[in-house]
Amino acid sequence: MMMKHILRSDIDKMEKRFRANFINSLSGFKSANLVGTKSADGQSNVSIVSSVIHLGSNPPLLGMVMRPPSVPRHSYENILETKVFTLNHVGKDFFNEAHQTSARYEKEESEFRATGLAEEYLNGSEVPSVGEASIKMGMRLVEDVHITHNDTRFIIAEIEWVQLEEKLVKEDGFVDLFEAEGVCISGLDSYHSPTSLGRLEYAKADQPLRFKQTK
Amino acid sequence: MMMKHILRSDIDKMEKRFRANFINSLSGFKSANLVGTKSADGQSNVSIVSSVIHLGSNPPLLGMVMRPPSVPRHSYENILETKVFTLNHVGKDFFNEAHQTSARYEKEESEFRATGLAEEYLNGSEVPSVGEASIKMGMRLVEDVHITHNDTRFIIAEIEWVQLEEKLVKEDGFVDLFEAEGVCISGLDSYHSPTSLGRLEYAKADQPLRFKQTK
Repeated sequence: MMMKHILRSDIDKMEKRFRANFINSLSGFKSANLVGTKSADGQSNVSIVSSVIHLGSNPPLLGMVMRPPSVPRHSYENILETKVFTLNHVGKDFFNEAHQTSARYEKEESEFRATGLAEEYLNGSEVPSVGEASIKMGMRLVEDVHITHNDTRFIIAEIEWVQLEEKLVKEDGFVDLFEAEGVCISGLDSYHSPTSLGRLEYAKADQPLRFKQTK
Repeated sequence: MMMKHILRSDIDKMEKRFRANFINSLSGFKSANLVGTKSADGQSNVSIVSSVIHLGSNPPLLGMVMRPPSVPRHSYENILETKVFTLNHVGKDFFNEAHQTSARYEKEESEFRATGLAEEYLNGSEVPSVGEASIKMGMRLVEDVHITHNDTRFIIAEIEWVQLEEKLVKEDGFVDLFEAEGVCISGLDSYHSPTSLGRLEYAKADQPLRFKQTK
């Protein structure tokens, strides 16, 4: 096995695009979500993000990294304006359309119309969710953390509602993302279908590990 | 298709363990990394985390969520003490051992010894990496962000070095995590092997999307 050892000084010397591909691969597999927003003047927007992360169950909180505000980010601006947005899991059947939302559309152009993804409004929500998604969530902004080291934003939001297929929720609360045909992302542009290796029991220091049966 | 609509008030009424399983599933698939640390008095520690996230390529930064400091967290304490740690991608061949590191071992007990994972020291690193991992990184703490809303910590760290199999790095810098046999996590305890659906070209507003050939 040929091992490659790369130092920080090598990373700094990499060509910009090469470095972006390389470093974006190193965190491991990433979640794939579509962020649905609306501007204060009523323009809807949908955009793929690979940076949604679990922050806590009680209260139910998710985090999401946004690029520096110097780059035009319609989703981020809309979230600051209205404080609400949706998150919609990307599925195997529409990951192409989901990826296409990352193109630089003008602010007055809706990515829903451009990509053909279905724009829907659930339960009186002011912000659009994605019809194709099997798991959808209504979110409310609670904290907008400024990461000073590289001027990114870490957005923290509370889950207000969840809509999902009933059969996906197992008896212990686990939601089967494999059954939901969800995808994950690696690097900037690689999509993956995660097959199941099984669930493992809560690990204990003095006991051998066992697989868990999901009912 | 039977849809389930769950409100925040329903989430608040869920039994604690059910809610943890449910909410932990909702961010989507998560990265699977082992954090290698050492305390100031020389005790090594390795612990699985599903919260490592890409923050930026230039400088090369990753973020990682840690639980509230009120819960004993040996990894977090060690990182504060020494400012350095390693991240090691979890592979299909050793995800059971990786999961076992989440058991509550005493601080003076090394998870390397308890689980049989190989403790190694690369390139004069003070902190251990995991011999079995095909992708390993040396990290240095740069910011310890306090998430006031639920008292978690968001640790920001710079990549100091990367060691990985040479063949995994493609000509445009992309690292093939599928070829590396990496796994991802959903919920608290479900492991997945992500098969490849392909890479997509950089999306443009006025052009149809194409698949990319990785060389």
